[in-house]
Amino acid sequence: MINKRQLLAERPNGMPNENTWNFVEETVAALQDGEILIEQSHVSLDPAMRGWINDSRSYIPPVQIGEVMRAGSVGKVIDTQGETKFKVGDYVTGWGGVQQYYVGNGDGFVQIEPNLDNHPKYLGVLGMPGMTAYFGILEVGEIKEGDVVLVSGGAGAVGSVVGQIAKIKGCTVIGIAGGPEKCAYMTDELGFDGAIDYKNENIVSAIKKHCPKGIDVYFDNVGGDILDAALMFIRMHARIVICGAISQYNNTTAMQGPKNYLSLLVNRGTMKGMVVLDYVPKYRDAMKTMAQWMQEGKLKSKEDVYEGVENFRSTFNRLFSGEKLGKLVLKVKA
Amino acid sequence: MINKRQLLAERPNGMPNENTWNFVEETVAALQDGEILIEQSHVSLDPAMRGWINDSRSYIPPVQIGEVMRAGSVGKVIDTQGETKFKVGDYVTGWGGVQQYYVGNGDGFVQIEPNLDNHPKYLGVLGMPGMTAYFGILEVGEIKEGDVVLVSGGAGAVGSVVGQIAKIKGCTVIGIAGGPEKCAYMTDELGFDGAIDYKNENIVSAIKKHCPKGIDVYFDNVGGDILDAALMFIRMHARIVICGAISQYNNTTAMQGPKNYLSLLVNRGTMKGMVVLDYVPKYRDAMKTMAQWMQEGKLKSKEDVYEGVENFRSTFNRLFSGEKLGKLVLKVKA
Repeated sequence: MINKRQLLAERPNGMPNENTWNFVEETVAALQDGEILIEQSHVSLDPAMRGWINDSRSYIPPVQIGEVMRAGSVGKVIDTQGETKFKVGDYVTGWGGVQQYYVGNGDGFVQIEPNLDNHPKYLGVLGMPGMTAYFGILEVGEIKEGDVVLVSGGAGAVGSVVGQIAKIKGCTVIGIAGGPEKCAYMTDELGFDGAIDYKNENIVSAIKKHCPKGIDVYFDNVGGDILDAALMFIRMHARIVICGAISQYNNTTAMQGPKNYLSLLVNRGTMKGMVVLDYVPKYRDAMKTMAQWMQEGKLKSKEDVYEGVENFRSTFNRLFSGEKLGKLVLKVKA
Repeated sequence: MINKRQLLAERPNGMPNENTWNFVEETVAALQDGEILIEQSHVSLDPAMRGWINDSRSYIPPVQIGEVMRAGSVGKVIDTQGETKFKVGDYVTGWGGVQQYYVGNGDGFVQIEPNLDNHPKYLGVLGMPGMTAYFGILEVGEIKEGDVVLVSGGAGAVGSVVGQIAKIKGCTVIGIAGGPEKCAYMTDELGFDGAIDYKNENIVSAIKKHCPKGIDVYFDNVGGDILDAALMFIRMHARIVICGAISQYNNTTAMQGPKNYLSLLVNRGTMKGMVVLDYVPKYRDAMKTMAQWMQEGKLKSKEDVYEGVENFRSTFNRLFSGEKLGKLVLKVKA
């Protein structure tokens, strides 16, 4: 059985290129005692993956050269050997990597409902991005009814859920995204109160227009100039959730720091970093709540699904060019 | 009676220069009903004053052109008219401005102990800088026993108190200052565990050496490269107190933002701004505690006193050149 895989070949300087990953077709290894074989259906593509291939101190160790590229995934157990955590036929989600077949002891995988149609959702709204949104806006952002919430990457996998949860909790929500299609998605489908098209509007005057009383919570997925603009409009005791900085991940020069950070002093603001892995023990309850909201029609999600392990790099780079709508997923099923 | 005063003449671009303030000698106005006349002995010189002469949104309105320069002060009431808050002979501290005599209703002044020798202490360790240190390190920094605390401007009016309070609370304290004299002051007189001379040491390797296990709390008075270096070494759940950014106040180009701010994400850190005016209702208790520590010899302070209203600008600029040791005060008594 042939396994199409993407191995890390070298660490990129800036945007990943044709030398970053090595696409290989290898025979699936025979199972050892205690191992399972997962036939993966979908692999998750997330901005955080760009950080995992830098050789630097972070919240998890970097992917090593020659290793399969780390990625969240979802699939079905099709073989086992000896005593194992899962049995043949189980549907599971975990860290299967960018490949068609996973072989290992299944550490870090959890079982999911056996509904094949929903697999991509387990990588999005019910997966890491959804959990990031849930704990980020509720526990780090500490939103309360009436807050003005600004979210960048508002049409993306995390931001779209952040904004919808803030709406559920009675906040006024303004989303930032690139292009009219994403902006229409935020206001017309997700129910945000306003949308800012950073590619076609002046971000400073747009925030001023949409948030005339200022911002209570800014949920930042992008960093750079948009973070600086948001800092100009924070209200007293505002919270800024640092979830990511997608505008900066492929920099070949120094990171751009928020030059308006002294607004934190003037407005007694808080800027707080978060990593979703800290909330793993609470995932189950969060997923239950989110599923309930989905059933009630309060929480919507969209997945943008591409196909083929060999198309991993070109698909991955859509995260940074913005050419996708919703959660970016790669279908890898053989 | 002649009143030597410094009036704001124009807003500087960068470092204040000979056109920024206008030194005048004016006759003291006759008191109106409800007014008091204070003969000021000392005026406080603080980095925050640089911000008060910018025409920008901040935590207090900017000083207007033609107004006496705002400054904390201490003095004695020598005349009153009608019903007044204070009586002749009272010693008071408040916002008297850079001048020899204050005339007004005394709003914002509080009475102090009638010990002339201690007047400069009411502008330092028992004044705004001391209160900033007290609430900044205890309530914003939330130090606990065993924390590693790094403080910039560690030999200054705020930093020296921050470090001593952290020592009293059982922390390991490393101070950053410019030059061997200030470093010796921090370790030999204030009892800090270590000192970093940013003018003669590589700040990154020095922090690494002095804080091998990382930093739990960084109290930032300076911003710029030192803030960036501190961010490289924060531990999990570290707190960064943004008290000021003296390295950036006279910039003529854009503020330098902390380019390592994503360390907040990796380490789940918090960066929080503070303004001491929020704690006015708690000043009295804090001063009592601080005075007790002073009596017990646990809290020391040094004032660097210069003389003459006409020397205000050259003395003020010592805040930015670093040519002072301890709290910078100007004696203005006629």
